[in-house]
Amino acid sequence: MAENKFDTTCIGNAIVDVIAKIEDDFLLQENLVKNSMNLIDEARAEDLYSKMGTAVEISGGSAGNTAAGVASLGGRSNYIGKVRNDQLGAIFAHDIEAIGVNFKTARSEEGAATARSFILVTPDAHRTMNTYLGACVELGPEDIDPDMIAGSEVTYMEGYLWDPEGGKAAFRKAAKISHEAGKRVSLTLSDSFCVDRYRDEFIDFIEDGVDILFANEDEIKSLYQTDNLAEAISAVREKVEIACVTRSKEGSVIIQNETTVDIEADTSIEVVDTTGAGDLYASGFLFGFTNGYSLADSGRIASLAAAEIISHIGARPEVSLQKLISEKL
Amino acid sequence: MAENKFDTTCIGNAIVDVIAKIEDDFLLQENLVKNSMNLIDEARAEDLYSKMGTAVEISGGSAGNTAAGVASLGGRSNYIGKVRNDQLGAIFAHDIEAIGVNFKTARSEEGAATARSFILVTPDAHRTMNTYLGACVELGPEDIDPDMIAGSEVTYMEGYLWDPEGGKAAFRKAAKISHEAGKRVSLTLSDSFCVDRYRDEFIDFIEDGVDILFANEDEIKSLYQTDNLAEAISAVREKVEIACVTRSKEGSVIIQNETTVDIEADTSIEVVDTTGAGDLYASGFLFGFTNGYSLADSGRIASLAAAEIISHIGARPEVSLQKLISEKL
Repeated sequence: MAENKFDTTCIGNAIVDVIAKIEDDFLLQENLVKNSMNLIDEARAEDLYSKMGTAVEISGGSAGNTAAGVASLGGRSNYIGKVRNDQLGAIFAHDIEAIGVNFKTARSEEGAATARSFILVTPDAHRTMNTYLGACVELGPEDIDPDMIAGSEVTYMEGYLWDPEGGKAAFRKAAKISHEAGKRVSLTLSDSFCVDRYRDEFIDFIEDGVDILFANEDEIKSLYQTDNLAEAISAVREKVEIACVTRSKEGSVIIQNETTVDIEADTSIEVVDTTGAGDLYASGFLFGFTNGYSLADSGRIASLAAAEIISHIGARPEVSLQKLISEKL
Repeated sequence: MAENKFDTTCIGNAIVDVIAKIEDDFLLQENLVKNSMNLIDEARAEDLYSKMGTAVEISGGSAGNTAAGVASLGGRSNYIGKVRNDQLGAIFAHDIEAIGVNFKTARSEEGAATARSFILVTPDAHRTMNTYLGACVELGPEDIDPDMIAGSEVTYMEGYLWDPEGGKAAFRKAAKISHEAGKRVSLTLSDSFCVDRYRDEFIDFIEDGVDILFANEDEIKSLYQTDNLAEAISAVREKVEIACVTRSKEGSVIIQNETTVDIEADTSIEVVDTTGAGDLYASGFLFGFTNGYSLADSGRIASLAAAEIISHIGARPEVSLQKLISEKL
């Protein structure tokens, strides 16, 4: 087996978050379901932006946040995603590189602008996302460098990548290379609406080729179309090597064959913005897993990373997660 | 006298802030003086950005922040400043309009990109600014609409506007129109280094044509080249109708002829980032002054607005200042 150059390669939609605080009424007026991720076109992006208040721009993208978290924890982190060569693309590239992530995907030279997600944060700290995929639709199999994937202990992909056609193809190519190199493939289900869109394909793909699955309670229930969490967990246990099911304030459950590990959430912090909680949970677990930590310790690192991210606006760590876990683990 | 369309028109360098947390060592390595504003060229902007960590982008610009604050307080607020028709320019325009400011200055169609200020926030919450003026150098007298100025009770300008040649010319034109219409001209000294650059011109301009002057302790001492605050205050008292001298944690002093009003700072809040403290102080005072509040109440509104802005990252209000003062004044 080739020596690993990276602990993780994360592949996803490269997005700059445009975050604004709103009142709940705004969601009603705009027919938005709280906590959902909605795909929007350019016209709707302009319409929604014109109705939103003052915003803050921060690099985001689910797998991009996970890659940033792995790097902040001290892991060797690689990212694949598509931005355009525009100002927002330069911001995305700067931020992910500045935190220590390797990001070599070619920028697109024409076509749609760098993707934006208009993230509306209600007073209860929940976020509702409206994503204009922009340049993300240009990602394709040609952006998957086989050496990078073969040299990554885990290749992690977001379910959202299923939305653009090229993303899905890139995803399948990367999974194949990873397994041929004897490495692991990891997937996050991303969002229960995303699961609704691709349930059958996800079920097949998970059975065929996912070693480590991340899902929250809603997503895993949606995947197996059940209201019963125990039933969903029982179903997933047979399908993947490891499943991590996050349950917000209830903590998380890690399943590996007959082993079940319950992890508590860190409820001591004040929740400001839940954006990125799942992404950073994945950072923590993947960092732990690829660096020889036990399942339980990997879960604890995951919880600590998630707690840091929800304590402030934005989905990229504001402090060194490596330092944080050295103090708190 | 023409009826006022606006309480205030603020004129300044239209800038998007790029804010990153840093350690004090970084300032030493980069030869930066804490709390200063440094003008940088494009090459230095790229160099500095490449060395900075993950950043957050938020609309800024000293007078832009003041205009946003006046609008958030419920005042009729107008802004004049130059951005390019690029992504950062669109962000700047969105944010200032979304908070309720009238912003009609024509975007530049070519030349330098929208201005950025790389703001480095040290653990003590102080900020050191590095500003690439970009499209701001395109602002000129042609951007001053006489009707807007004649229809504004106060026209407020930042000292920083003296840096680009066209800005200074725009500034002088606006001051002339304002006075001819029987309205007031207000100036902030902006920064003690800015005072160093233009001391003689500022002294002349203040004597000739400033009615309401804003300065912090360092700036007013620098203006009159004295270490003695009382001496500086005594000097400025004869030159302008009203002077507001801010003193950080020591509060502020408002001087009008023989009247001196001491205003306490709100020290109950946790200081996260001092960016914009002076800008929002000016918002509060100008809103109060143009809406019939007493000097003392205008000063209290100023203090409350400044306290809100330093309690979070970024120099634009995160809550409705109108609501805040209705609860706290």
